[in-house]
Amino acid sequence: MRWKLLIAYDGAPFAGWQSQTGGTGVQDHFEAALLTITGERLPLHGSGRTDAGVHALGQVAHFDAPPDSRMTAENWRRALNAALPPAIRVLRATRVPATFNARFAARGKIYRYQLWRGPVLPPHLHQRAWHLPLGLDPATLRRALAPFVGEHDFHAFTANRGTPPTTTIRRITRIHVTTRGPALTVTFEGGGFLYKMVRMLVGAGVRVAQGKESPAHVAALLAHPGQGRWNHVAPADGLTLVRVRY
Amino acid sequence: MRWKLLIAYDGAPFAGWQSQTGGTGVQDHFEAALLTITGERLPLHGSGRTDAGVHALGQVAHFDAPPDSRMTAENWRRALNAALPPAIRVLRATRVPATFNARFAARGKIYRYQLWRGPVLPPHLHQRAWHLPLGLDPATLRRALAPFVGEHDFHAFTANRGTPPTTTIRRITRIHVTTRGPALTVTFEGGGFLYKMVRMLVGAGVRVAQGKESPAHVAALLAHPGQGRWNHVAPADGLTLVRVRY
Repeated sequence: MRWKLLIAYDGAPFAGWQSQTGGTGVQDHFEAALLTITGERLPLHGSGRTDAGVHALGQVAHFDAPPDSRMTAENWRRALNAALPPAIRVLRATRVPATFNARFAARGKIYRYQLWRGPVLPPHLHQRAWHLPLGLDPATLRRALAPFVGEHDFHAFTANRGTPPTTTIRRITRIHVTTRGPALTVTFEGGGFLYKMVRMLVGAGVRVAQGKESPAHVAALLAHPGQGRWNHVAPADGLTLVRVRY
Repeated sequence: MRWKLLIAYDGAPFAGWQSQTGGTGVQDHFEAALLTITGERLPLHGSGRTDAGVHALGQVAHFDAPPDSRMTAENWRRALNAALPPAIRVLRATRVPATFNARFAARGKIYRYQLWRGPVLPPHLHQRAWHLPLGLDPATLRRALAPFVGEHDFHAFTANRGTPPTTTIRRITRIHVTTRGPALTVTFEGGGFLYKMVRMLVGAGVRVAQGKESPAHVAALLAHPGQGRWNHVAPADGLTLVRVRY
């Protein structure tokens, strides 16, 4: 019996999604909760990793319950939330066919990046936004990010991590910049994103919008993959995985 | 030279506004920061105390700088924010006449109480809202809170703390209930509030709205001060001091 979980977490207290030797990954907390509930070591498979400090409003994962389990969706949600720390919540549990795979069935993702342009970062946004006290013009940022929309080889906008991906070509369908007072939000929608890619794109957009980097340099990195790498990564604090599409 | 500070804090990590023997009050952090900056022990006077766990978006306080200080408003804001933990922020420093007193000059306050009516409390609202998983009808809550508007003796809706106030008569000018999905916010505006009063009024409103307490009992406590006390206090987590009016 396979279950799909819709998960939210505050990334600040955890060492990222993936299991860590110290047991401080979000996945470790889930596997400990599943052990408490079922008495068995059940692996949990996420749609993808999120780095230390990155948040989630709609991470998705699946696991296989023991065949004799009689737990309902409501039982799973309650039991897991009772066993998990309050910074990790199961929003919904859904029974899915055994063919469903949280990672391989994912057809797209939405990420949101939060910036704060006021002189003082409000306490409730500590570890939840990138603080740019000198401000940032949304129209300039929009122009700086526009070249990333579409299908590109994002080789220059990802970091190395373990096995390299089979391809660094990805399609971004939409980049949307909105503001509300000093708050500025960038939303990325696409088929999938490489390791650290969203944070590198935000880093590039901000550096260009600040006039610290030329749009031509960014365009060249996008046009000629393998001839250099972007090296300004926006902080993890501002990033939230909002939704995984299936 | 007297300075007025507009202050925001996340109440979760602190033992309330007031100085504590362990040095864990918000005031202690300010006095430590002022000592670091000036080399002197300068007392800071708040508009009023907030309990452990209560948040602020617009707390106000004043202090007197040493006579030889050449610090500008901008200097104070920057120096204090550099010395304070990120969960406490000075939003603005303003030079005020020596007659200004953050506590005695206050003419009114606005408090906001946050409730969450969904089955699961989202991680970012942990320690920032009162979780009512079984829901709460806003119209019923509005009706339950309406009797508190106006001038009343709130003797039954405050807790004892040190010296009793000279009077327990207070005027509430407005109680406003708004919703956005599962989020429900109650805003209280008034000339001033007694110790734990807002949390007791929220506790009373919620108990009546849930049908666990009769509106007649609450009305009697309001009409006959000294003949009983309300004893359901809403959790501190949901409460924020939004603004102090001068």
